[in-house]
Amino acid sequence: MTVFEMKPIGHIHSPYSDTSQIPKGAGAQHSAEGTLEVSAELAAGLQDLEGFSHLFLIWVFHRSEGYELVGTNPTDKKPHGVFATRSPWRPNPIGLTVVQLLRREDNLLFLRGLDMLDGTPVLDIKPYMSGIPADQLKRGWMEELEAAPGPP
Amino acid sequence: MTVFEMKPIGHIHSPYSDTSQIPKGAGAQHSAEGTLEVSAELAAGLQDLEGFSHLFLIWVFHRSEGYELVGTNPTDKKPHGVFATRSPWRPNPIGLTVVQLLRREDNLLFLRGLDMLDGTPVLDIKPYMSGIPADQLKRGWMEELEAAPGPP
Repeated sequence: MTVFEMKPIGHIHSPYSDTSQIPKGAGAQHSAEGTLEVSAELAAGLQDLEGFSHLFLIWVFHRSEGYELVGTNPTDKKPHGVFATRSPWRPNPIGLTVVQLLRREDNLLFLRGLDMLDGTPVLDIKPYMSGIPADQLKRGWMEELEAAPGPP
Repeated sequence: MTVFEMKPIGHIHSPYSDTSQIPKGAGAQHSAEGTLEVSAELAAGLQDLEGFSHLFLIWVFHRSEGYELVGTNPTDKKPHGVFATRSPWRPNPIGLTVVQLLRREDNLLFLRGLDMLDGTPVLDIKPYMSGIPADQLKRGWMEELEAAPGPP
């Protein structure tokens, strides 16, 4: 079977040393600040990044082991397929986060909106160019959950 | 050095057999339709995905070899760092595309908005939950390019 080998381009410095500290579920706000330290030999690849307010980070759930195709999550008690959630237990343990770029100092990116552990390996950075307007989105089980009455 | 091994969860069937056929650059419209055929043994992981109108696909530029940290692209003649672009020649050849989910038939996802080659290996699927509103975005060189007068 085909295997693709990916190497970290850098690592996250975040306030989270344990996953229990990371806000989760519907309506979770991610305002944590920290840095992405890109490997010095790749710093040239960051040229002009500071023109963008937001970035996609593609990273690895490096503490996650194995996967479950159907599971429950902290938000909803109903089980969902792993590809319909952001569960860390995925066939490929890849995380995706949109962060705000506060500033850059050489190979150090100062970021807001981190939701990953300190030490997380990052595989790629991409500029955030555009999004889908909220009124064009259907958000499946997440929408149903938000519309459901809260706990009594 | 740490290496992460990623395996395809499925493959794209798209109308593009050659990269020259794929619309590129500022304002490129991606309306191509096709399918993502997820490996049958992972089909259970797709449960409830059909509730979402849009998905993130994380995939591999499988025909791309090597990378360049600073390069020019089809849109802009000025060179930019690779992480400030969507260039295929990246340290990790990972692609990221937001697609519209038209419907699902078992392990076959019918999609609109493909911008990758036929046969592209896909590593992950995530539900699109929300985006950053356009009026909160700064888009660096892309914005400058759109504001520049066109060719005479």
